[in-house]
Amino acid sequence: MKKFFITKNRRLRSTPFASRLEKQGLKSYTIYNHMFLPTAFNSLEEDYFHLREHVQIWDVSVQRAIEISGKDSSKLVQLMTCRDLSKSKAGVCYYSPLVDSNGNLINDPLIYKLNENKWRICIADSDVILFAKGISSVQNMNVDIIEAKIDTLAVQGPKSLKLMEKVFGEEIKELKFFKFDFYEFDGIKFLISRSGYSKQSGYEIHVENIDSGLKLYDYFFKIGEELNVKPGSPNLIERIEGGLLSYGNDMDIGDNPFECGFDKYINLESDIMFLGKEKLKKIKQKGIKRKLMGVKIEAKEIDLTEEIKMFNNENKEIGQLRSAGFSPRFKKIVGIAMVQKGFWATSQKFKINIDGNYFTGEICSLPIL
Amino acid sequence: MKKFFITKNRRLRSTPFASRLEKQGLKSYTIYNHMFLPTAFNSLEEDYFHLREHVQIWDVSVQRAIEISGKDSSKLVQLMTCRDLSKSKAGVCYYSPLVDSNGNLINDPLIYKLNENKWRICIADSDVILFAKGISSVQNMNVDIIEAKIDTLAVQGPKSLKLMEKVFGEEIKELKFFKFDFYEFDGIKFLISRSGYSKQSGYEIHVENIDSGLKLYDYFFKIGEELNVKPGSPNLIERIEGGLLSYGNDMDIGDNPFECGFDKYINLESDIMFLGKEKLKKIKQKGIKRKLMGVKIEAKEIDLTEEIKMFNNENKEIGQLRSAGFSPRFKKIVGIAMVQKGFWATSQKFKINIDGNYFTGEICSLPIL
Repeated sequence: MKKFFITKNRRLRSTPFASRLEKQGLKSYTIYNHMFLPTAFNSLEEDYFHLREHVQIWDVSVQRAIEISGKDSSKLVQLMTCRDLSKSKAGVCYYSPLVDSNGNLINDPLIYKLNENKWRICIADSDVILFAKGISSVQNMNVDIIEAKIDTLAVQGPKSLKLMEKVFGEEIKELKFFKFDFYEFDGIKFLISRSGYSKQSGYEIHVENIDSGLKLYDYFFKIGEELNVKPGSPNLIERIEGGLLSYGNDMDIGDNPFECGFDKYINLESDIMFLGKEKLKKIKQKGIKRKLMGVKIEAKEIDLTEEIKMFNNENKEIGQLRSAGFSPRFKKIVGIAMVQKGFWATSQKFKINIDGNYFTGEICSLPIL
Repeated sequence: MKKFFITKNRRLRSTPFASRLEKQGLKSYTIYNHMFLPTAFNSLEEDYFHLREHVQIWDVSVQRAIEISGKDSSKLVQLMTCRDLSKSKAGVCYYSPLVDSNGNLINDPLIYKLNENKWRICIADSDVILFAKGISSVQNMNVDIIEAKIDTLAVQGPKSLKLMEKVFGEEIKELKFFKFDFYEFDGIKFLISRSGYSKQSGYEIHVENIDSGLKLYDYFFKIGEELNVKPGSPNLIERIEGGLLSYGNDMDIGDNPFECGFDKYINLESDIMFLGKEKLKKIKQKGIKRKLMGVKIEAKEIDLTEEIKMFNNENKEIGQLRSAGFSPRFKKIVGIAMVQKGFWATSQKFKINIDGNYFTGEICSLPIL
């Protein structure tokens, strides 16, 4: 695929780590939440194997943090998500599909409960702040809604615990999956959660003080040399294999959370109030007609720029491929597709046209094992 | 400035004109509304002079069209903007600041009134659809809100009327500024408005049928050869000189419409209902403490990636430069800055640090003449 340049301006925000990333051999960026997200240092394959074996530092500042505080903050946050947060606890992160009144997905953030009257919504690529402002302003809710001045570093990979221990001490070992707490480095407290957009285990660090964040960034590379620490970024192949969905790629405002396999985060039985609840009840009653599945395709190369139709042997369209890349482990293309009902069996074969040639593929479950 | 590649995927939508643009020598893209916007074919300077003398075809499909229809559509559209639309007419486009309940800007779209119950909001770079959905869903409004499947071509430059006449016939001459109507090409009706993001006069064409849109695109270049038609894009220098603001660059959710000089689009006296009305009344009463102004700087080169502070002779910060580029006409840098009260005189001098060196500048009015 032909490559194109992108230039910076004020509208597309850079990150405080940019000059470091660029010195470290960054090759390309993408844009996410009006901001630059580093995407490749070496080849996708090299970054993939390194992530699965060692530890990487990612600049994921694009996961913007929408902070909602005030007396009505819990009510507002609950209105936006189909996940029951009524028994939620401070110190826990909740992966929560946000839905509109049609029951369609508008984002899939990790929601941090800071306390009963303060929430931090770490978002995928859509302006959740406008949704929150729209809802709260007509209801005259007692809330403050801001985009917090936070930039996030992720420490990901099987050696992430070792690296974190070297920097923040033994107590970090006690932090459980999807919990967060505050840990000190250089005299500054950082909010750290055990979370991240990979299946290799890891941590996410919210940087509020940029100077300290830069010191921390540099220290990771200094102290982590013996662990073979490298700069990295969310890896297309690793996240597809791990079944980690990407808003905008695998699902969008045209899809509902049942179609995306979010069933366990949809709480229709409890008496919480959220937008789209009645619509989701109807969808559940009728049953969905399509859902996201994994695929494997007997091909070596793909540059997916829009969804690609998949056909069965009778040339019936059975689904659309939405994300895909070559897996160096499977030696074939792996992907995520929206698949029509009736074709969900993991033995289901299909054919697909990639750049003018037909290839065969097979439906599989997510994660792709 | 070091340049970086950007790669395509489903999340960042391409345009139906991409293959043509890329054959025509497109050099770079930017991302706008989750979509690719072509930004340079030749140098910024060459594109600038050509736009001011001839006619260009722009792919501005990134101006996504949010369509709001239904019995309560007028009420919803009015709630989002401080411009009085109560006497609006079908067939007219209204440049309308959208404000939140704090009276801050969330977008500055051109709103097309299709009929009493149908509006098309052609947006700058933020997810207005989520704001509209947030408001309407808690009020149980009778509205449909969709992102329309429309891609927009702009025909811009002093020879734009001549080119449009060749394609759509003499009747296009009757179309007045900020009006729209439907015109036929190849048996298909296109919505065309006399509008566009340049000061050189021009038209915007809403393409609903992609095949016809591609035919039209090719026909412009065939029939327009004698007018020296070229592919182009919104031009940083031309739009700064013309005082055309860019949401995300010159203003954002931290600014109110008075600070952006939108006074004539803020209707506080009429009895319309919109969010932020009370806040804007208070702001007006108190008076603003800063506003957007033009600047000229005695320097030749600038790559602005974030706002840059401006200081007076006593080293007091008097404003922040938000957009800037070298003007080949003025032989200096022109820009748009948020300037503190007390420093709005057009003779006001300032100094500014660009890449380590200090340069002197002068405040001026917008447009920059």
